Amino acid sequence: MKKYDFTPDWLEKEPNQQTFRSIFKWGAKDYFKNPSQGFLNIIKEELGLSNTDFQTPVNLGNKAVENTRETRIAKEDITLFETIVGRDNLFFDTYSRLKYSTGKSMEDILNLRQGQIEKISDLILHPRSREDIKKILALCHEKKIPLHVYGGGSSVTLGLDCPKGGVTLVMGTHLNKMIEFNEINQTITVEPGMMGPEYEDLLNHAPEKLNAKTRYTGGHFPQSFEFSSVGGWVVTLGSGQASSYYGDVYDLVVSQEYVTPTGAFKTHDFPATATGPKINDIMKGSEGCFGVLIAVTMKIFQYQPETARQFTYMFPDFKAAIDAARQISQAESGMPSILRLSDPEETDVAMKMYGLEGSLPDKYMGFKGLRPGSRCLLMGQTDGDNSFSKNLFKQVKKVCKTNQGLYLTGYPMKKWQKGRFSDPYMRDALNDFGVLIDTLEASVTWDHIQALYSAVRNHIKKHPNTICMTHASHFYAQGTNLYFIFITKMQDVEEFRSFQHGIIEKIEKNFGSLSHHHGVGRMMVPWMEKHLGENQMDILRAIKKHFDPHNIMNPGGLGL
Amino acid sequence: MKKYDFTPDWLEKEPNQQTFRSIFKWGAKDYFKNPSQGFLNIIKEELGLSNTDFQTPVNLGNKAVENTRETRIAKEDITLFETIVGRDNLFFDTYSRLKYSTGKSMEDILNLRQGQIEKISDLILHPRSREDIKKILALCHEKKIPLHVYGGGSSVTLGLDCPKGGVTLVMGTHLNKMIEFNEINQTITVEPGMMGPEYEDLLNHAPEKLNAKTRYTGGHFPQSFEFSSVGGWVVTLGSGQASSYYGDVYDLVVSQEYVTPTGAFKTHDFPATATGPKINDIMKGSEGCFGVLIAVTMKIFQYQPETARQFTYMFPDFKAAIDAARQISQAESGMPSILRLSDPEETDVAMKMYGLEGSLPDKYMGFKGLRPGSRCLLMGQTDGDNSFSKNLFKQVKKVCKTNQGLYLTGYPMKKWQKGRFSDPYMRDALNDFGVLIDTLEASVTWDHIQALYSAVRNHIKKHPNTICMTHASHFYAQGTNLYFIFITKMQDVEEFRSFQHGIIEKIEKNFGSLSHHHGVGRMMVPWMEKHLGENQMDILRAIKKHFDPHNIMNPGGLGL
Repeated sequence: MKKYDFTPDWLEKEPNQQTFRSIFKWGAKDYFKNPSQGFLNIIKEELGLSNTDFQTPVNLGNKAVENTRETRIAKEDITLFETIVGRDNLFFDTYSRLKYSTGKSMEDILNLRQGQIEKISDLILHPRSREDIKKILALCHEKKIPLHVYGGGSSVTLGLDCPKGGVTLVMGTHLNKMIEFNEINQTITVEPGMMGPEYEDLLNHAPEKLNAKTRYTGGHFPQSFEFSSVGGWVVTLGSGQASSYYGDVYDLVVSQEYVTPTGAFKTHDFPATATGPKINDIMKGSEGCFGVLIAVTMKIFQYQPETARQFTYMFPDFKAAIDAARQISQAESGMPSILRLSDPEETDVAMKMYGLEGSLPDKYMGFKGLRPGSRCLLMGQTDGDNSFSKNLFKQVKKVCKTNQGLYLTGYPMKKWQKGRFSDPYMRDALNDFGVLIDTLEASVTWDHIQALYSAVRNHIKKHPNTICMTHASHFYAQGTNLYFIFITKMQDVEEFRSFQHGIIEKIEKNFGSLSHHHGVGRMMVPWMEKHLGENQMDILRAIKKHFDPHNIMNPGGLGL
Repeated sequence: MKKYDFTPDWLEKEPNQQTFRSIFKWGAKDYFKNPSQGFLNIIKEELGLSNTDFQTPVNLGNKAVENTRETRIAKEDITLFETIVGRDNLFFDTYSRLKYSTGKSMEDILNLRQGQIEKISDLILHPRSREDIKKILALCHEKKIPLHVYGGGSSVTLGLDCPKGGVTLVMGTHLNKMIEFNEINQTITVEPGMMGPEYEDLLNHAPEKLNAKTRYTGGHFPQSFEFSSVGGWVVTLGSGQASSYYGDVYDLVVSQEYVTPTGAFKTHDFPATATGPKINDIMKGSEGCFGVLIAVTMKIFQYQPETARQFTYMFPDFKAAIDAARQISQAESGMPSILRLSDPEETDVAMKMYGLEGSLPDKYMGFKGLRPGSRCLLMGQTDGDNSFSKNLFKQVKKVCKTNQGLYLTGYPMKKWQKGRFSDPYMRDALNDFGVLIDTLEASVTWDHIQALYSAVRNHIKKHPNTICMTHASHFYAQGTNLYFIFITKMQDVEEFRSFQHGIIEKIEKNFGSLSHHHGVGRMMVPWMEKHLGENQMDILRAIKKHFDPHNIMNPGGLGL
């Protein structure tokens, strides 16, 4: 097995406290996942790297964050904040401020690895109640101090940058409780700092924990699920991996409660209304620019994992796979919860990663005309009531067969599901050797999918020795999203930023949305005006001005 | 057959041109539908009326509208408007102005029957193009002349009142064309003045008319379908009778194009985005207060009437029927397109109307414990792909049986479908004899349905000799709507208005939405501030101010 003759000395060590690494490491401190030998070989091959390149790790960020940055908040103001939240819930050491001003974008990580401290908050507060938040907000408004909100910290779009400093509220520390469970309405109301796993666990165990008649699910599983908060999902417009059935967060929110500089309010929880433009929808996706979300009521669903049916099909080419996915999405037999279509490159990587290349199934595929470099994987899962799930599974099969799809059982899908939350851990391992891995995503209507795909892919592949894997993973009758993953060797932040900006420009020019489910953050800001147009940005600006006349709420966020 | 010994001399005569009657008569000039003998008997019985009451028609509105009202627009301004639209598309005679300032609310009709001319427009324009609209809007903005928009004229919430006079744009005359049909995206883009039947007919005949591969439906069938426009649906947030499957208009709109006093724009047509609050949603339901809708892109669906399955069940009481409907809505086997639950009074009326009272099926129901005064009808239809529709039909059956529902075949449902667009014609016939029939509707979560139902019903029934029929007809996992129909004898507008206001107050106090799908118009304005709260109204006011600093766009609409 010459192929597997070398394993890098992956760094499987819990980062020391107070280090840069402790901030950027993804997820649990003590959990590590390294690229498989198959995956590593692909990377070496495609990026033109040798074993030598995986011998000396670089920029590990093991240095402690020194307390070098003076807070810019006046001492007397800090005392005022302390009066509100208490001494235990207030921090202004550089480490805390850096930690809560940093997300998980490649740019964030590169900066931290190089010990750069940029655009950080001046004061970290852990509010204990909505009353705390009201008081903090009033004080910030009065003193014109910028105010930011930190949910789970999983932003990949520089959403936590504090270019003007100011105060950051950490919601997960105290504001993480359930407020109300309403079984007859199938809704749950929670504080915004509740994290994904606690939220889902509570619902899954509703009979024991909430005295419910049955078990429920929130139906929202973004890849950041384990380290993102319910509030974060809502204000950044996230989509979970099962969104094609359960809906994006936009669809899941029933009502919200906000505190803003110019007033607090709770939107109605009617299932539908015709009483003018819906305030509930105006607030979704506001990314902390209008106010602070303090409670949210979400739709919940029957938890019935026993009805789930997994499927995988291989198609001869991208077009056939897209056609099948479109037909499934427009067939009106219901929507699969998960539907995931990989382009030829991602399909080939998957085949190699799972060690299937050259296997018997691989040979059979070759025999059937499903060849590397062209074939595409479509996998998914049906959910819902058992009869619904069963029927939909059958209908999916019909559509796939019509489009020359070869059924490969549910096994690859199950395999993917196992790794779906742990895969992001591999990024740190690769970054340790200067291999960058990042993603960008866009939504797109069916008629523009091929052009957008080609334009972005061609652009990425122009960069030598770069892997570009693409998938579509959220489906609608009118279109889908394209999710581009690129892997390349780069260490310089400026070089990376310019590469990334080139991709965003291609997306924008080729009728892709700037973001399908990662939000705007600061990353998309330079394109927002062009993307929405001045007149539509003016509407957002007018709303912003109404809520936040002193421009203290995440100033500059959304491009406002 | 003593029961049917008397038939009123229903007025089946096309109204004379230029009369008040020609304005308020519902729908086609030459189509009439009178109450059946069964229905008439119920009305006589419940309202305590005798044959004498149906001998002399009152307030028929047969008088011609005299040209008594001087337009308040200055002569030189009229000349300017004429320069824009041409002489043929400009009117300021009293009849035209009254016609396009009147909807179909009971109050509108009572006023017209009494020859009252109130709150009318000063100038009627039929714009020929979006350029016309831009110019008209700019002129109105410059001269501070109020601007109103007339779609199909079917508003039942005084949405066409022009309390400050001004200009009214009639959209249906010229702006009624298709702009683009996009089969791969399953969307159609139309001008706002296209009427329901033209819209649906175009889609149903897509292969012949649009060179499409298959036939489509818009899936939107409000009771006003035949006399309402696509643009009107969107700006007032309508819901069709099949909304539980196809969605409310809110869900059907992909993108919109507006001209506003401060700029024109077209929203994106991405299937989903995370680029901040969605402008597309901010505009829906704006009822002409922000700008003029000049194009709208809508989702379309497979037209497959052959897969539809009708069902009817009778339940022992309201609670059992509600429970069944809720379980269907939360079962995750998909949603029926039509689902319609009648309360005991509406059920009894239906039984009598269809001549089923005392029939063999009626006796069988009695034997099964399904008795008048308590039993409730639930009827509906499943649609979508054949296998989906078939499976859902089965699942509905299961749920209904579990809740003691007795299957009554699909016949009553088919019977209802036949009359669903023609039933409104009966109102004029009854009005001719001073019998008022009107409706109010609210959306409500499951947990408040019983309280809201009782409060509103008790209030209506306090008024002596009044029929109150209630149904729920739009279903969501989180709740439904309640639609109250009341029939009583009343001629005085003030008395009627006060009665109606009492009902709205009960709705508002008992956790009902002010409107589920009739919009705000002017009728709900007095309650808007209380309903949404000052802080949420302030948001709408801020947006209004941004679009319309001179307050010319439907001034006072939405309470702004």
